[in-house]
Amino acid sequence: MRGAVLYGAGDVRFEERAAPTIIAPTDAIIRIAATCVCGSDLWPYRGMPAVAGPTAMGHEYCGIVEDVGSAVASVKPGQFVIGSFFASDNTCAICAAGYQSSCQHRELVGGAQAPLLRVPLADGTLVATPEVPSDDLIPDLLAVSDVLGTGWFAADAANVKPGGTVAVVGDGAVGLLGILAAKQMGAGRIIAMSRHETRQKLAREFGATDIVAERGDDGVERIKELTKGVGADSVLECVGTQQSMMQAIHCTRKGGWMGYVGVPHGVELEGEELFFAHVHLHGGPAPVRRFLPKLIDLVLTGKIHPGKVFDLTLPLDQVAEGYRAMDERRAIKALLRP
Amino acid sequence: MRGAVLYGAGDVRFEERAAPTIIAPTDAIIRIAATCVCGSDLWPYRGMPAVAGPTAMGHEYCGIVEDVGSAVASVKPGQFVIGSFFASDNTCAICAAGYQSSCQHRELVGGAQAPLLRVPLADGTLVATPEVPSDDLIPDLLAVSDVLGTGWFAADAANVKPGGTVAVVGDGAVGLLGILAAKQMGAGRIIAMSRHETRQKLAREFGATDIVAERGDDGVERIKELTKGVGADSVLECVGTQQSMMQAIHCTRKGGWMGYVGVPHGVELEGEELFFAHVHLHGGPAPVRRFLPKLIDLVLTGKIHPGKVFDLTLPLDQVAEGYRAMDERRAIKALLRP
Repeated sequence: MRGAVLYGAGDVRFEERAAPTIIAPTDAIIRIAATCVCGSDLWPYRGMPAVAGPTAMGHEYCGIVEDVGSAVASVKPGQFVIGSFFASDNTCAICAAGYQSSCQHRELVGGAQAPLLRVPLADGTLVATPEVPSDDLIPDLLAVSDVLGTGWFAADAANVKPGGTVAVVGDGAVGLLGILAAKQMGAGRIIAMSRHETRQKLAREFGATDIVAERGDDGVERIKELTKGVGADSVLECVGTQQSMMQAIHCTRKGGWMGYVGVPHGVELEGEELFFAHVHLHGGPAPVRRFLPKLIDLVLTGKIHPGKVFDLTLPLDQVAEGYRAMDERRAIKALLRP
Repeated sequence: MRGAVLYGAGDVRFEERAAPTIIAPTDAIIRIAATCVCGSDLWPYRGMPAVAGPTAMGHEYCGIVEDVGSAVASVKPGQFVIGSFFASDNTCAICAAGYQSSCQHRELVGGAQAPLLRVPLADGTLVATPEVPSDDLIPDLLAVSDVLGTGWFAADAANVKPGGTVAVVGDGAVGLLGILAAKQMGAGRIIAMSRHETRQKLAREFGATDIVAERGDDGVERIKELTKGVGADSVLECVGTQQSMMQAIHCTRKGGWMGYVGVPHGVELEGEELFFAHVHLHGGPAPVRRFLPKLIDLVLTGKIHPGKVFDLTLPLDQVAEGYRAMDERRAIKALLRP
């Protein structure tokens, strides 16, 4: 089969590689219905840090079970399934606490930008839909695999409550779906921080009530103005830079919650500043598995349409163009069809 | 009157200074029943950082209201009252959310190591006891003013729940009272990290079920051994150094809670490490006012005896010896009687 391989900065190739096979009895092989390019894929694509060698890319996926190992009991060939970027046993103490992405036996899933994918710990990782969904639902279901699950975790970590005031830092696909999540959780006011017109439009569609175009200290100042000097109850940080983290912390009211899901790059938090900021801080790799059943249900019942973040659809063999379009911010998120 | 004034590292003097008077109509003047030396007083006492000039010391207090400004309505001369280190209006949006120590109109209270003290925003800051308490209750009530309130906030911030496993980093008075707080909140297991025999003894008396003498990575290793490799659900950080903060974060299970109340000195948290630690982080200056009514009630009904942390009692004019004894760790905490 052919799949996406990253060789170095800006160099994604669609090339022949070995088709995955069952290695452990707990594995499953999935025939990919759709996959996509993640914001986190752009970091190594930009050489920060550079990949150590050619790396099979992709960790967002949904599709039909092709084969399962002898120990797999909960999914079977022919079922449509969704999983996420960390495989988890879903039984250990950490999974039981809802933190499957830190499962004591977790394994990274990789190489999903290809027709076939091996998923370890299939019983703990994959959730099957009641029946094979119609084709028009594929973008929404693919979004659940990572980008919605991550935005949802940001809102969950930021303790979004009915009636609360929410600010979202970052207008990438995760930030936009953080807005959708906050709306679903009943937020009274959702302030999107965005300078890009097309993203502002989608932000409003997902539930944003206010747009703040300013960044950094000016952005913080605007949030303070909009909240009577108090700051937002809940702030979602969906970027991962020093500026965005500090912007998010400073936008949060004293005693409020800041949820961060952008993988931090070069971020240092100064202890005394954090102490007097007086915020709750929570984040990390999103435990998407915790949210999968609920999010799949919201999609299948037509309550949410997270697939709207895919504003570019390409055949899988044009994966390199997907990376380029996202890198140049011509696309919010690129969906790839094998 | 005479009170404690810090001139520089190791140089506390008990000397004549002007008695406080009502400045704003919302002020009260308190005749101090007892005061004490705080762990946070030791930082400037050690010159980290040095004081800018002679500084009136002390911010822990209880006593009898001597005088009130014209706008004070909730306390009156003759009442016994307790307050804490930040005066707060207790009516702003931040106070309403329970974060009085970040009140939008907060003022630091200072100079309590003296016979008389001015407390701003008296209505929002002071809580009166139903009657003037007997003398033997004074140490317990004084502890409520800061050190218990701070240990309590650490446990609250660390989300201590009935049956949960708790670890406490730091065996100073705050850490020891964090143990008492965790016990009151129903923790199933409380692991105290301490190398000092007298403090271990008090830790057990307050509710510790296990003692870990190791520090740093070895301490983390022991906590992991005691918790089947998982870590503690709730960790209280009561020191404020880089080592203690990292020790606390690494002792926390993935998805668990770390409450920090030691004022951080020279602490830097690396973003990516924090991200993958996957913990909830909350702390800051303890909003003692939130807890005062409950903690006073627990003392007056004899349910807790936080005053046991005072293992040295001195007349106020020997305040310098109080600082020395705590600095040299000969005393856990020094109570001073005017």
